[in-house]
Amino acid sequence: MSHAEYVSSISIDCVIFGFDEGELKVLLIKRAKDPSKGGWALPGGFVGQEEDLDVAAKTILEELTGLKKIYMEQLHTFGDVNRYPLARVISIVYASLIKVGDYELRAADNAQEAVWHPVSEVPQLVFDHSKMLAVALERLKRDVQYQPIGFELLPKKFTLTQLQTLYETVLETTLDKRNFRKKILGMDLLIALDEFQRGAPNRAARLFKFDTQKYKELKSKGFMFEL
Amino acid sequence: MSHAEYVSSISIDCVIFGFDEGELKVLLIKRAKDPSKGGWALPGGFVGQEEDLDVAAKTILEELTGLKKIYMEQLHTFGDVNRYPLARVISIVYASLIKVGDYELRAADNAQEAVWHPVSEVPQLVFDHSKMLAVALERLKRDVQYQPIGFELLPKKFTLTQLQTLYETVLETTLDKRNFRKKILGMDLLIALDEFQRGAPNRAARLFKFDTQKYKELKSKGFMFEL
Repeated sequence: MSHAEYVSSISIDCVIFGFDEGELKVLLIKRAKDPSKGGWALPGGFVGQEEDLDVAAKTILEELTGLKKIYMEQLHTFGDVNRYPLARVISIVYASLIKVGDYELRAADNAQEAVWHPVSEVPQLVFDHSKMLAVALERLKRDVQYQPIGFELLPKKFTLTQLQTLYETVLETTLDKRNFRKKILGMDLLIALDEFQRGAPNRAARLFKFDTQKYKELKSKGFMFEL
Repeated sequence: MSHAEYVSSISIDCVIFGFDEGELKVLLIKRAKDPSKGGWALPGGFVGQEEDLDVAAKTILEELTGLKKIYMEQLHTFGDVNRYPLARVISIVYASLIKVGDYELRAADNAQEAVWHPVSEVPQLVFDHSKMLAVALERLKRDVQYQPIGFELLPKKFTLTQLQTLYETVLETTLDKRNFRKKILGMDLLIALDEFQRGAPNRAARLFKFDTQKYKELKSKGFMFEL
């Protein structure tokens, strides 16, 4: 699109969290263009005049990083007067949590690079992107207390240890094993299978799957998972 | 401010819910200017070039309705391509819940009138304002399940019936009395006083107040109040 085809005062930035083998990551790009060329940033860009916001978010993310059809939720709109150096630009932040291994990155357009960074070692980000990331991280941690997670992040059949690792990763903390199991099993969210993890070193761990019906129900109705 | 001093593509709309003697209301204005002159709308306007968003929201609300210093939370940004008839305008919605009796309305600027309408009988609204209201109402109903409410809405000392009426009003439903009391008292949120409501018809009802410390704690930490 040419410059005139964008709403010049509105951008979208995407906070894409990645669950990667027990580590929480965030997708960053190295900017190819000014302002802040060479700086690390959340993938972001301007909204097309003829694009609805949710569509624009997907388009921007795909153009910069190659990630296709990612379901994102709108998080918050950032609009401090001096947040962007060239003009008054208000940015709508979208967020998602995906499984790193399911996707391949391909940097293009305003992204010299597109890289998963561990959340614990994020470099300095351009503009107000560090604040955006902080808000998104806080929201993610709050959301996992109110909604089940794991459906798109774990294998179909998983052990309780794998599920606990997911929670520990997102919350960036360690949880008491016995307490976690008691709470998660108390929610009737999991179905215990008569199958066990293969190749486990000592004794094989039982596999579980989500009760899809219950998962959907809790997703829409919410719960309180005090961890 | 002159036209050039606004960001022409960004507006803010305010969903101000009012708790009014057992009825849930929403603040609407009758528009004084085109587009949709004479139509009922949420109070809204453009963002000043030199205004942060939170400040702009307060300014707009005060200019149109006379409501001062209302604490609002940013809710969601609406940006469908055709949501506004004259140009591409993206609107950031802010929301609040206040006590109708605490404030006086004074319509001005783009508001011919500023009126509290019962949520159950809202007229047709301009642009996508009905959708904004629906989203805000849904969020309000969800939030009361996760956070305590009432501090700014009830008298300092209140009866359990008054508190239940507040919940019933916001949720637009009736709740079982015994169940409600059991749950609310189980949260250690209330302090029972050795005082009773005056002038009660049959027997006087006990007065309660919020445990301020616990209220704040639950407000930030969240809970699950299954109603």
